Amino acid sequence: MNVPHHEFARVPVPEELLSALRARFAGRFATSEAVRAHHGKDESAHPPALPDGVVFAHSTEEVADTVKLCRIHGVPVIAYGVGSSVEGQVLAVHGGICLDLSQMNRVLAVNQADLDARVQAGVTRKQLNQELHGTGLFFPIDPGADATLGGMAATRASGTNAVRYGTMRENVLGATVVLADGRVIKTGTRARKSSAGYDLTRLFVGSEGTLGIITELTVRLYPLPEAVSSAVCAFPDMDEAVAAVIETIQLGVPVARIELLDRFAIAAVNRHSKTSLKEAPTLFFEFHGSPASVEEQARLVQDIAGGHGGMEFQWATRPEDRSRLWQARHDAYFACLQLRPGSRSLTTDVCVPISRLAECVSATRADIEASGFTAPILGHVGDGNFHVAILVNPEDAAELERAHELNRRLVRRALDMEGTCTGEHGVGLGKQEFLPTEHGEGALDVMRAIKHALDPDNLLNPGKILPG
Amino acid sequence: MNVPHHEFARVPVPEELLSALRARFAGRFATSEAVRAHHGKDESAHPPALPDGVVFAHSTEEVADTVKLCRIHGVPVIAYGVGSSVEGQVLAVHGGICLDLSQMNRVLAVNQADLDARVQAGVTRKQLNQELHGTGLFFPIDPGADATLGGMAATRASGTNAVRYGTMRENVLGATVVLADGRVIKTGTRARKSSAGYDLTRLFVGSEGTLGIITELTVRLYPLPEAVSSAVCAFPDMDEAVAAVIETIQLGVPVARIELLDRFAIAAVNRHSKTSLKEAPTLFFEFHGSPASVEEQARLVQDIAGGHGGMEFQWATRPEDRSRLWQARHDAYFACLQLRPGSRSLTTDVCVPISRLAECVSATRADIEASGFTAPILGHVGDGNFHVAILVNPEDAAELERAHELNRRLVRRALDMEGTCTGEHGVGLGKQEFLPTEHGEGALDVMRAIKHALDPDNLLNPGKILPG
Repeated sequence: MNVPHHEFARVPVPEELLSALRARFAGRFATSEAVRAHHGKDESAHPPALPDGVVFAHSTEEVADTVKLCRIHGVPVIAYGVGSSVEGQVLAVHGGICLDLSQMNRVLAVNQADLDARVQAGVTRKQLNQELHGTGLFFPIDPGADATLGGMAATRASGTNAVRYGTMRENVLGATVVLADGRVIKTGTRARKSSAGYDLTRLFVGSEGTLGIITELTVRLYPLPEAVSSAVCAFPDMDEAVAAVIETIQLGVPVARIELLDRFAIAAVNRHSKTSLKEAPTLFFEFHGSPASVEEQARLVQDIAGGHGGMEFQWATRPEDRSRLWQARHDAYFACLQLRPGSRSLTTDVCVPISRLAECVSATRADIEASGFTAPILGHVGDGNFHVAILVNPEDAAELERAHELNRRLVRRALDMEGTCTGEHGVGLGKQEFLPTEHGEGALDVMRAIKHALDPDNLLNPGKILPG
Repeated sequence: MNVPHHEFARVPVPEELLSALRARFAGRFATSEAVRAHHGKDESAHPPALPDGVVFAHSTEEVADTVKLCRIHGVPVIAYGVGSSVEGQVLAVHGGICLDLSQMNRVLAVNQADLDARVQAGVTRKQLNQELHGTGLFFPIDPGADATLGGMAATRASGTNAVRYGTMRENVLGATVVLADGRVIKTGTRARKSSAGYDLTRLFVGSEGTLGIITELTVRLYPLPEAVSSAVCAFPDMDEAVAAVIETIQLGVPVARIELLDRFAIAAVNRHSKTSLKEAPTLFFEFHGSPASVEEQARLVQDIAGGHGGMEFQWATRPEDRSRLWQARHDAYFACLQLRPGSRSLTTDVCVPISRLAECVSATRADIEASGFTAPILGHVGDGNFHVAILVNPEDAAELERAHELNRRLVRRALDMEGTCTGEHGVGLGKQEFLPTEHGEGALDVMRAIKHALDPDNLLNPGKILPG
């Protein structure tokens, strides 16, 4: 619904290609309506766009072969993990062949001394953490959904832990990538840092499958913190909550997570998770470190919160209490949907310099209220990143358009504050219209030149990031 | 001397261009032998290659005008900061016009709440830290030399603090870049993270002036740690020293610096800095944090070191003692040169997974001894990064070639261990021959395609990173 103005032409897929794929992949090439429908949608509110067939690849070589076959026939290829993208990244808007990588789900190596792991692209973050059990290590990036690591790399995902551990940008050391011509390259090494030429790893991270298909990647791991504690604290208003965040960051407190929920999100969480949090702007904190360091961080943050009118500061050091608290935070998205039964969420995401965060959130809150929508605000505020879940009736075109306008005003507000149109959801289909304002035509031309240089026939996930 | 086999053709520079530059820049365009000679060399042992003239630019617009004028005449443009590059990055091997950015040295904005600063490319790291005095913030990246931030971004520099604070890759939020056609673009925003399209910032960082000229950049700042302490500890051998480092990293001790000096480097330091350190493989540590956290980190590391035969663990918490210790570390390069008066250093840099570090350093030490060179080893070992300073008589061609062979064996060893041919010095001229092995021809083709897409006439620092 975000893109009613786009018109996509479907590329014809010749029977010859379908036959060749059937010959190559047998039962692992599907053209049934059900399989195609499953692969033609994601978690966004964008209307489905079905691929013409789906290959369930088992190896980099199979991905390369699929790309080569599609190239012969000028047919698009769309990489797919678990379909948890939120801006329409996996939709086959020009048709073509979907490459489902979810069965490429082997953890290939865990290097405990080096704190890294090599995985196939279809390994999910939860699976990796399960396989790391007993090693004393973990992979921190947590976008909420149990996304594949390949998909998370492709969309430059982050989430609640990014304030301490960075995003996929900082945590992918290297990748195996299938190029548009079917050649396979490796980017990066297992060294922690390198100055050996152009940073291809960072170029493919965030390119949403439009420059190459990531089939394997090496990610950084971290020692499990010896101690973890959590806290939750309500504030009299948004400005005070955000001021407490800024002071925490400025003091260099190495906090692992700082999440903001506005009073509407808290109300939803209370109803859904049977919590009894005060319905006010609320910060959720998590601290990682040694027992002494965690206690010190927590005391510091409690003092800071107190200085900003923080109320009902609650500790959780027992694992079950922490889990309950963070489970409530994680379920907030579903809790929010229940504020308006039958609705879907137009979920949007911006990121601004933290000094502008309170202003941006407050203006957005006012705009939401003037618009009459139910639209809770949740954010990874340590990074200046927040989401608005605009609850809409998917059957009501006029309402959809009003939600879309609300989103446009939010993004323009973020850009005016030197922010970005998406902190972590990616461009996909939904954020394309904002790129000229954010980057300028010159920088967009550079992106187009790179796309053209690497994918001259526009066969890799066409129609995403850059229109065309 | 690293590139005796390269032959560079100088591009003719028409008098018409020189006149146009004189008309545009008057006294800020120099063609004197002295100025050209100053700009035709860097800190490396590569033979000088003088530009045909030097523009001292004051603004992005002036950089763009210079690029446009040079483009009309097909003349190369080489960006220059303070000439502290170490792989020949600033040498005008094809001739052309040097763009000296050192007078673009204004700190344009310091955003205390957002922990960032916008600077012109010619601001040096020490200047920035001086201007930050009193703000409670600092810029941590410290490659040793007082390099410009533009040059540090262009070479993806790092240094002693990278284990805690990352490299220029992690610390540049955005840049203003002049493209090969003279257009000016901005990459990134002031938001901490973004998923809005291809990561152009990371593409220009580390591109050594071959894809565009960085004229302004926004860098991350950090709160000055409340407490800092240092320690130094000698080990019975390299393996034990490195094992202590691995254990420190694996335990998640957030150490700010871990530097390794071998016994030859320690001997040089003792002689130069009048210290009386035990002549054995030695680790220098620095801890940042709250007073309690710093004490805890130090105690932990002392325990770890003890478990690996660490001897003579020495503390330094008083600022003057810390300064003396780290000054000695910083002066180690010059101290090493004095081990062989009249010598120059062929300084090389590799980075390997930390699990391979002891093996790589030991094999390198054996190779050095078999080669008969004086060549101390120093390293940012928390990252797996180390340098070898091979002391050579610059007049002796045969010795230079032997030093070059020693370097080649070192790099091959690092690549065989899944490492990189350069952790932080960049490719310039000296590391080009290793790129095919490190990246493979496919990935190099991608780099070439990007170079061609952004600089089709090969006018931006030609001959660097990619041959041609």
